[in-house]
Amino acid sequence: MILQSPSVERLLEAFRMLPGVGRRTAERMTLHMLSAPEDVAMQLSEALRDARQRIRKCSVCCNLTEIDPCPICTSESRDKSIVCVVEQPVGVMAIEKGGEYRGQYHVLLGVLNPLDGVGPDDLSVGRLRERIASGEIREVIVATNATAEGEATALYLARVLAQPDVKVSRIAHGVPMGGGLEYADEVTLGHAMQGRTPLS
Amino acid sequence: MILQSPSVERLLEAFRMLPGVGRRTAERMTLHMLSAPEDVAMQLSEALRDARQRIRKCSVCCNLTEIDPCPICTSESRDKSIVCVVEQPVGVMAIEKGGEYRGQYHVLLGVLNPLDGVGPDDLSVGRLRERIASGEIREVIVATNATAEGEATALYLARVLAQPDVKVSRIAHGVPMGGGLEYADEVTLGHAMQGRTPLS
Repeated sequence: MILQSPSVERLLEAFRMLPGVGRRTAERMTLHMLSAPEDVAMQLSEALRDARQRIRKCSVCCNLTEIDPCPICTSESRDKSIVCVVEQPVGVMAIEKGGEYRGQYHVLLGVLNPLDGVGPDDLSVGRLRERIASGEIREVIVATNATAEGEATALYLARVLAQPDVKVSRIAHGVPMGGGLEYADEVTLGHAMQGRTPLS
Repeated sequence: MILQSPSVERLLEAFRMLPGVGRRTAERMTLHMLSAPEDVAMQLSEALRDARQRIRKCSVCCNLTEIDPCPICTSESRDKSIVCVVEQPVGVMAIEKGGEYRGQYHVLLGVLNPLDGVGPDDLSVGRLRERIASGEIREVIVATNATAEGEATALYLARVLAQPDVKVSRIAHGVPMGGGLEYADEVTLGHAMQGRTPLS
């Protein structure tokens, strides 16, 4: 960066912490923010501080929320006997966009990852077990990502959550809707074959 | 956005003002900033406010700077008789990266654009004329972009800056170094032909 100023360097480094932003993009963002009218930069600065101070984790499901417990946990129109377990708040957003699921959620805030030292105690598994112990939940749908860590976490949850009156299920993995077979990779196709359902 | 919170919506809209950031990227950035430890968001918020308050326009060349006049304008080792005119501070950065140019700069803060109502008075042309009137400058190199507006601005500058003892020149346009002829478009090739220089 040619502007030899510690404050500009600090801004550049701060932009680089955003997902998908490398050195060049951070440079463009920094120059844009410094060239644009002052209130543009101030707006982002204040929006960030304000949102970060208002948004917290729901004490029930660990999703991000402004009101605790979150609107999904307190909603009267949602099925309280089903809980869908996701890795991150973005998972809740993805499923809610579909608009079909009407149950509750539980955000793990990560996945088991022994190599990075992430164990069950670093996730919100304990809180999920408490929710199940309270007796209202009949089914847990594990919707962790289809990665090695996500699969391992799903298997772990199936083991620790198993109870006679609680069903633990896993979302289906297979060929995406609208996708041709030729675009699916072999692992996905293998899963699609194994998970076949009867048509008649 | 599923988090129905005005503060989150405001943050999302603020991220969208960054260059190259659409709705989806802004969503990712927002969720990242809300999920990451609180000091990550605060760091960006404060770096923005701090940089925006410290950085101003150099009163001589209009480049962004923390110290006014900027280090390039006050440098003893740079040639004060040559000034290179660019559209934006990013132009100064691009030329400085090359490291060959040792003259001064002048940032126009835009280009002439009658359709958007940008005339000479909206640019720093007046300040450039004052600098030339002060008598030290012998050559003005116009390095506005090779767009229709950039070319028009270059022609305008050539006309208004013309003085017997001041040379106004334009940077060369042609085939980029390392680029094959087959990758250059026809307009660039036309410029390259017209701007040919004798080899012997």
